[in-house]
Amino acid sequence: MFSYDRYLHFRETDAAGVVYFSEVLNLCHEAYEASLRAAGVDLKAFFSATGTTIVPIIHAEVNFFKPLYCGDRIWIDLTLTIPDPNPNSKHDSSISSEFELAYKLYTTPDRSDRPVAQAKTRHVCVTPATRQRQDCSLYLGEWMELLQTTVP
Amino acid sequence: MFSYDRYLHFRETDAAGVVYFSEVLNLCHEAYEASLRAAGVDLKAFFSATGTTIVPIIHAEVNFFKPLYCGDRIWIDLTLTIPDPNPNSKHDSSISSEFELAYKLYTTPDRSDRPVAQAKTRHVCVTPATRQRQDCSLYLGEWMELLQTTVP
Amino acid sequence: MFSYDRYLHFRETDAAGVVYFSEVLNLCHEAYEASLRAAGVDLKAFFSATGTTIVPIIHAEVNFFKPLYCGDRIWIDLTLTIPDPNPNSKHDSSISSEFELAYKLYTTPDRSDRPVAQAKTRHVCVTPATRQRQDCSLYLGEWMELLQTTVP
Amino acid sequence: MFSYDRYLHFRETDAAGVVYFSEVLNLCHEAYEASLRAAGVDLKAFFSATGTTIVPIIHAEVNFFKPLYCGDRIWIDLTLTIPDPNPNSKHDSSISSEFELAYKLYTTPDRSDRPVAQAKTRHVCVTPATRQRQDCSLYLGEWMELLQTTVP
Repeated sequence: MFSYDRYLHFRETDAAGVVYFSEVLNLCHEAYEASLRAAGVDLKAFFSATGTTIVPIIHAEVNFFKPLYCGDRIWIDLTLTIPDPNPNSKHDSSISSEFELAYKLYTTPDRSDRPVAQAKTRHVCVTPATRQRQDCSLYLGEWMELLQTTVP
Repeated sequence: MFSYDRYLHFRETDAAGVVYFSEVLNLCHEAYEASLRAAGVDLKAFFSATGTTIVPIIHAEVNFFKPLYCGDRIWIDLTLTIPDPNPNSKHDSSISSEFELAYKLYTTPDRSDRPVAQAKTRHVCVTPATRQRQDCSLYLGEWMELLQTTVP
Repeated sequence: MFSYDRYLHFRETDAAGVVYFSEVLNLCHEAYEASLRAAGVDLKAFFSATGTTIVPIIHAEVNFFKPLYCGDRIWIDLTLTIPDPNPNSKHDSSISSEFELAYKLYTTPDRSDRPVAQAKTRHVCVTPATRQRQDCSLYLGEWMELLQTTVP
Repeated sequence: MFSYDRYLHFRETDAAGVVYFSEVLNLCHEAYEASLRAAGVDLKAFFSATGTTIVPIIHAEVNFFKPLYCGDRIWIDLTLTIPDPNPNSKHDSSISSEFELAYKLYTTPDRSDRPVAQAKTRHVCVTPATRQRQDCSLYLGEWMELLQTTVP
């Protein structure tokens, strides 16, 4: 698990007076970026269009339980799951080319209350030129260890 | 069904050279806004903090099948579903206080290819002061008719 | 001159109930993109990191005269100015490597009222590898003609 | 003076591989918000539509000297200027109803290099109902002291 926190900005609110829904996914992506930085990943290279491996998001979902306001401080807990290689996949079934991140968002540091929101993002490791899937653990092994995940 | 289209902006892209993932949900929300406008809804009042009914998003999800680029033109088809009132709900079970919007995004007007992305948002109609759920069809009846949905 | 219009989105508002200040510059950039498209420029290539010429913004400014609201329709008039080559420049003084765009934003199509906002952006044409300045008129001649500007 | 720093996010970049121009103004606004928080201002109330005083931005400008990248850490120095009350103003000339914030952005904490960008925002203190100008020092006195400004 990795944790990230920051204050919510005015820019992220909308005319209903609360944080605009998709901004919660942006917060989650920031937590993901912070976890990569903590594992020593060079973010400029990692998120560039010219790398040897790219890791696009193929799915995202989010549930909102309470409104968030400008000036609120938010704590995000990030956990990583690597799905078992899928023997029925049309892709190379011996590698894990995908991972999923789950996010719980709290407005208190002690996480005593229910999360104010929960989200998931699913990512795939791909060679840009060939669109061929890559083994994520080769590319992101140190980061995966940081998040204390057991790769099956 | 309601359709909306526009060009993708440079601001919506990221350093990987494609449209940033959460911007697709922003596009979907624009399609929702355009459908409300088409039904004669006053958007400034509808999305303000001071209305008698608010309609926050409680869930959003999106799947990405192909990257989108600056300058691409995107067509979005929007459909509405009203779930049956839930007899086991802890809320008033005789009304439909929620609705779901499904979005299919295409990069050609004839929709001959598979969508480049698909999304869903789930909304709930609430009185701000009491947080009590409202019957969406009372508040949004004309818009629901526009989207040609049969309320069960 | 080039004109662009669209409705303002909920995402662009903030908790003060109006359009967030920097979103006005995003609107202006959209007008710039629309003018490039109208001149036949391929936006994906133009705004990529790998082109032979890039055109970064080196200055932006904006004045706000009236608040803008979700659902407002906005009309933007865009005009182009090419400064005289500067004989005292430390750069090649025989070419015009910069241009300036001025934007007037209105909430009525007949522009009878004072603009609700006015903005300017200043752009420079550069070769990415060498950072050497380029003659904008070579790269953007057709677009400049479209905007009916006399290059000095 | 007040200082603020954070890492730049992937969301803030564009397909040219660098931070999108208007995001620099968003960073500046975050520094402003952080300075208000440091002075004990309740941000949710301060930036709401229902306060007794609102402080809209009436002018913003920014100069860009170097590109910024995803993962860069940025340090922002914020200084406050209160203009002399203007005897020729059409508004009440005995009060200072405006203030200006100047921002210098650096990519190193020791500020040894030239700033990568510089910006200004101009704000006016207004009663929402009457649109009448207010004396900013009455409303924002503690914050002004924090920024070590001498009000003329």
